[in-house]
Amino acid sequence: MDEVALQEKLGHAIRQQRVALEVSQETFADSIRMHRAYYSKIERGERNMTLATLWRVAQGLGLEPSELLREAGV
Amino acid sequence: MDEVALQEKLGHAIRQQRVALEVSQETFADSIRMHRAYYSKIERGERNMTLATLWRVAQGLGLEPSELLREAGV
Repeated sequence: MDEVALQEKLGHAIRQQRVALEVSQETFADSIRMHRAYYSKIERGERNMTLATLWRVAQGLGLEPSELLREAGV
Repeated sequence: MDEVALQEKLGHAIRQQRVALEVSQETFADSIRMHRAYYSKIERGERNMTLATLWRVAQGLGLEPSELLREAGV
């Protein structure tokens, strides 16, 4: 695995979890007070986010950061 | 938990894992090609590192990123 694969796997897992909550990208991004365009890039695996951002996304999904990474298989 | 607590818990877990490998901060930082001063700040919980950096540290410790976060209890 390289860094890009990590981002892509995590983005995919975030999308899956968000879809499972039956909320749109826009609604979810708003709920965690994140710019919609930035959040969209996270789901596409195009952002090397920080721990603080990972934590914010995980919180919004109702998961611990470690659980979210485990869901992503990383 | 807030963002600072996350950083501190993770830094503490990283230090524990590195000490368990019986390598110095300097040796470990060199082994993952990271500036020693930056790595020292990570262990002290003073850096909001990116996913790529988390992955590099976890690799050096022989862990998956999710395992490292779980060790940190976050």
